[in-house]
Amino acid sequence: MKEKFLNQTNPNVSVDCVIFGFDGVELKVLLVQRDLQDNLEIQDDTLVLPGDLIRDNEDLDEAASRVLTGLTGIRSVFLEQIGAFGNPNRLSKGKDRTWLEAVRLKPDARVITVGYFALINIKNYKIKPAGFAKHVVWHDYKVVEELGFDHNEILDAAIRILRNKLYREPVGFKLLPRKFSLHHLYCLYNEIMDAEIDRRNFRRRMLKTGFLKETDEFQEGVPHKPARLYTFVKKEFENVSRKNFKFY
Amino acid sequence: MKEKFLNQTNPNVSVDCVIFGFDGVELKVLLVQRDLQDNLEIQDDTLVLPGDLIRDNEDLDEAASRVLTGLTGIRSVFLEQIGAFGNPNRLSKGKDRTWLEAVRLKPDARVITVGYFALINIKNYKIKPAGFAKHVVWHDYKVVEELGFDHNEILDAAIRILRNKLYREPVGFKLLPRKFSLHHLYCLYNEIMDAEIDRRNFRRRMLKTGFLKETDEFQEGVPHKPARLYTFVKKEFENVSRKNFKFY
Repeated sequence: MKEKFLNQTNPNVSVDCVIFGFDGVELKVLLVQRDLQDNLEIQDDTLVLPGDLIRDNEDLDEAASRVLTGLTGIRSVFLEQIGAFGNPNRLSKGKDRTWLEAVRLKPDARVITVGYFALINIKNYKIKPAGFAKHVVWHDYKVVEELGFDHNEILDAAIRILRNKLYREPVGFKLLPRKFSLHHLYCLYNEIMDAEIDRRNFRRRMLKTGFLKETDEFQEGVPHKPARLYTFVKKEFENVSRKNFKFY
Repeated sequence: MKEKFLNQTNPNVSVDCVIFGFDGVELKVLLVQRDLQDNLEIQDDTLVLPGDLIRDNEDLDEAASRVLTGLTGIRSVFLEQIGAFGNPNRLSKGKDRTWLEAVRLKPDARVITVGYFALINIKNYKIKPAGFAKHVVWHDYKVVEELGFDHNEILDAAIRILRNKLYREPVGFKLLPRKFSLHHLYCLYNEIMDAEIDRRNFRRRMLKTGFLKETDEFQEGVPHKPARLYTFVKKEFENVSRKNFKFY
């Protein structure tokens, strides 16, 4: 009995996950097309971030992992909190109301959500839609349109954090293969910053940072002159973070 | 009737505020000694952060401002979100349970809390305890002991954010008078970083950053040789933030 009580879903708190991936060309975000299950007559092609209500016996971080795996099959991802989103009108759009009334026990409850984000290398994870996820897609970040609920706002917060981290933390580690060309790295930075970064400056400055280590290997199977491959030097990113505290 | 419904308190979501102040010597944090009201026979001298449940018609930011003003009298402070805290056991300590049972309609409800923080110049704000706040105190940050609930954890998160901001944003603006001596600034940085920063290095490096502008004024009414006063150059902090994005 107690166990049952402890496993209850909390009607007022949810988690939503922004999962960024990189396929070598485009920055992608993982989106879910929700299923209206029994209500086959209602058309709802709204895309949302993978998210759901928390259970009363689990921590927020646990809830985020469980919900992500439950909807998309993706597991063992390091999820980092973005913050809480609690606009009182965040669930008031028409299509969202229809969906909530179809699936939630208390569709009128005020829900605040805690946003999480993670970066993953698309090639390392297999997607398996489950639960209310009819489809799960890697959607090109640049052409995301109106999502359900306040999920555009959560996505905006996540991209701001990602851009901020880009020059302070070894973000690329998680989005790129272990060995990559400078062009590959350039595409990633270009995509995330959504700006035309000057190619020659990028190359010169990136090499000067000490973040990169040259390998003896070159690209294989490319129709042009194969480019040299690099790896990240994690230690140098740690030094960058510390440089701000140079008064010690 | 609807208005009443809209003003209901949400049993599952609260806000808690970490307000840092500086009195010229020590870093302070604003704490509340909670009142058990009718239960005069119970001794409870536990200190907590100013916080309470949100109302269903208000945004999280609004809730944080309302709760802070309602308990401490402090108003018009820019509160920034730290994140959400949701350990399922965060309300399980004995003294906390007693207090919750005395004051909450649903003392057993799972509550997740959203932490906020702000920096203020102590001299500019007047404290007026109200609501369940028996006393409100500016407590020396360094000697904070065990707080109620998970408030030590929230305080730890806030100090980490503050330390991170110290060299990137004009944090001192809010904690110091408009004109201040280098010694005064040194004390502030020393207090926040909780480390013995080398005094001569600090002086030299701080002047080199461009963050500070010399004024023609000097300290008044001091028993020693009066020190020169400085002001902050806000623009230079903005440049520091941008330096990380130098590929443009």
